[in-house]
Amino acid sequence: MAEADAAVVRNEETEEEEQVVNPWEVSAGKGGIDYDKLVDQFGCQRLDDALVARVARLTSRPPHRFLRRGLFFAHRDLNEILDLYEKGERFYLYTGRGPSSEALHLGHLIPFMFTKYLQDAFKVPLVIQLTDDEKFLWKNLTVEESKRLARENAKDIIACGFDVERTFIFSDFNYVGGAFYENMVKVARCVTYNKVVGIFGFTPEDHIGKVSFPPVQAVPSFPSSFPHLFSGNDQLRCLIPCAIDQDPYFRMTRDVAPRIGYQKPSLIESRFFPALQGENTKMSASDPNSAIYVTDSAKEIKTKVNKYAFSGGRDSVELHRKLGANLDVDVPVKYLNFFLEDDNELEHIKKEYKEGRMLTGEVKQRLITVLSELVARHQRARAKVTEEMVDAFMAVRPLPNMFG
Amino acid sequence: MAEADAAVVRNEETEEEEQVVNPWEVSAGKGGIDYDKLVDQFGCQRLDDALVARVARLTSRPPHRFLRRGLFFAHRDLNEILDLYEKGERFYLYTGRGPSSEALHLGHLIPFMFTKYLQDAFKVPLVIQLTDDEKFLWKNLTVEESKRLARENAKDIIACGFDVERTFIFSDFNYVGGAFYENMVKVARCVTYNKVVGIFGFTPEDHIGKVSFPPVQAVPSFPSSFPHLFSGNDQLRCLIPCAIDQDPYFRMTRDVAPRIGYQKPSLIESRFFPALQGENTKMSASDPNSAIYVTDSAKEIKTKVNKYAFSGGRDSVELHRKLGANLDVDVPVKYLNFFLEDDNELEHIKKEYKEGRMLTGEVKQRLITVLSELVARHQRARAKVTEEMVDAFMAVRPLPNMFG
Repeated sequence: MAEADAAVVRNEETEEEEQVVNPWEVSAGKGGIDYDKLVDQFGCQRLDDALVARVARLTSRPPHRFLRRGLFFAHRDLNEILDLYEKGERFYLYTGRGPSSEALHLGHLIPFMFTKYLQDAFKVPLVIQLTDDEKFLWKNLTVEESKRLARENAKDIIACGFDVERTFIFSDFNYVGGAFYENMVKVARCVTYNKVVGIFGFTPEDHIGKVSFPPVQAVPSFPSSFPHLFSGNDQLRCLIPCAIDQDPYFRMTRDVAPRIGYQKPSLIESRFFPALQGENTKMSASDPNSAIYVTDSAKEIKTKVNKYAFSGGRDSVELHRKLGANLDVDVPVKYLNFFLEDDNELEHIKKEYKEGRMLTGEVKQRLITVLSELVARHQRARAKVTEEMVDAFMAVRPLPNMFG
Repeated sequence: MAEADAAVVRNEETEEEEQVVNPWEVSAGKGGIDYDKLVDQFGCQRLDDALVARVARLTSRPPHRFLRRGLFFAHRDLNEILDLYEKGERFYLYTGRGPSSEALHLGHLIPFMFTKYLQDAFKVPLVIQLTDDEKFLWKNLTVEESKRLARENAKDIIACGFDVERTFIFSDFNYVGGAFYENMVKVARCVTYNKVVGIFGFTPEDHIGKVSFPPVQAVPSFPSSFPHLFSGNDQLRCLIPCAIDQDPYFRMTRDVAPRIGYQKPSLIESRFFPALQGENTKMSASDPNSAIYVTDSAKEIKTKVNKYAFSGGRDSVELHRKLGANLDVDVPVKYLNFFLEDDNELEHIKKEYKEGRMLTGEVKQRLITVLSELVARHQRARAKVTEEMVDAFMAVRPLPNMFG
């Protein structure tokens, strides 16, 4: 998986510039990503309130704030998964990460926080793919470094609280082979070069590693890729929580699935998490001030939010009291939208801020508290993750109580 | 590996037609394959008498008839392998087969007969790749059928007499993964799509399985792909006996090798084995009369040779006595060239036949005897190959005495 869950919007030079969203590039025209256009362009479905309410009813718990607030906003055939679930059938979850950096930032955590909620709510097994091969192919890394980063990132993922009884984490370099490789080859036979060029925009000067990769990310969608988990259950349905930039992989996968006798995976897809500088900039590993990392100290978080988080507040207190904040561009509010659990408090802040009674400094102060708690909690959990726990999550083993 | 060791020359409609030789197609202009042109075009080296004599000296045994008679006629850096061997360094052999048919024909046996000679003469380990994934990708087979054919073909290969103490046979569907997959990805990153199009002639409507495959055939050239055999010996040299149509894979491999810190493999390359109907036709699975199969009975061999083997003899006995046979097009003589061990007898037959003293029927009779013995010997050996022996050859295991 790529990291565009983090990347947002590159500033474009002309207003007419078309938005580009694929697993390796996310850029938009002025005004940020047009998600409605994206849904139409990709051909996925909008995740409406009725569907959110149905999830809540079926799982007997309130929907996650990412669902309540439309941050996971699109899907493919989620309704089918819920229909089957209602009839007592189960499914499995598949998500992943491309391990290209040592430390995760908050954007990287979003799909994992949400996937943990889904695992707990539906009580289903989960496979997490670490695409160390992809990062080797796209970045200037050695195989050893890619594998090391995969293992380090696995620790951050485990720290999100996944249940080892229901979760299998694997790195491609370690796991590709056997039934997984058979499925890769089956998928590859169904996809022409022209097709991957159309979907992913490869050029003839790109290396064939890129051309070869899409089947690797496709096949965890098929239960037969995991004989130690799903042997004899080849038609088990799969639900993939991911950022919308990963949709091209699964459009391809859904196209191929029926041709090789498999079920199409369903998807539930999120918006992008904005950079501190706003939705028209890109979180970048080369600019540590563009993002909050899970390794940041409370002091760093405070400095970053105060100094870099783009404000929708006005230039002077007088003007702010008079006009109120522009919430459409305000990063602290966007971050609170992701991370402040209390709906009432969030609404209160937005109202007071929008109407000028609350100042940027106060909103930022609240955000600093929320993020510091979140990051400190993550750091505590991560410190407890041992090498043995990583081995346990990554062991190729049956999960006897995975639906329990 | 493809089967062009078998395929020879398609009749072309115009004389100007260029010869095409790649792993999936072998076709020539009128007059058969121009091997000299091929050597120049591919950029490999001619295997001259001095090199053959050196092989004989270093191995203290007569060179194989395939060497004596120029049937293995080209190489890449064979001299380097011999230089090192002379200094006491060892190497390993790599050959393979694409398992697309139930029964092998005589053309399929050539690289294996020659590889067995090399293994015995140099006392070196050997890896044999069965590209069941390739056959799945190129032919209309299921994965299961491809894997079954790989195992059946392994029995014919084992029947050639390889030493289980020094030989590892693997199927891609079973073995791809781990260090082998890491090397595949390393190779893939070094080869552009344009490059594989230039080497293999893929089109944009070809599926990406084809584009993804060349690294799979490349990486057995690198000892690190076999950690159970060559761990800690990553610079061990590799010698590949194969038919010349496989050269494109290894041109690519040799180009990539130094860029990823590996040694280039050396090659020793054979001509094609002709179809019964002559060098301008193609052995075809759909025409059982185009080839002698290792499953043929003595009676079938007799019928095929007598009825279908293209003769260079003249239309009448009178004319034949006067003009003699045209050995350039005579298939029985070509087959004897491959399979009759006795040089003196072969020379005698060629001389007598060429000068009209021997008739086609007599030459064919001698060939029938030679082939019947060869095939009967193969069938006896194949009947003794048990499932346990296949498992033993294909087990992923160290070979402690592989240089012994």
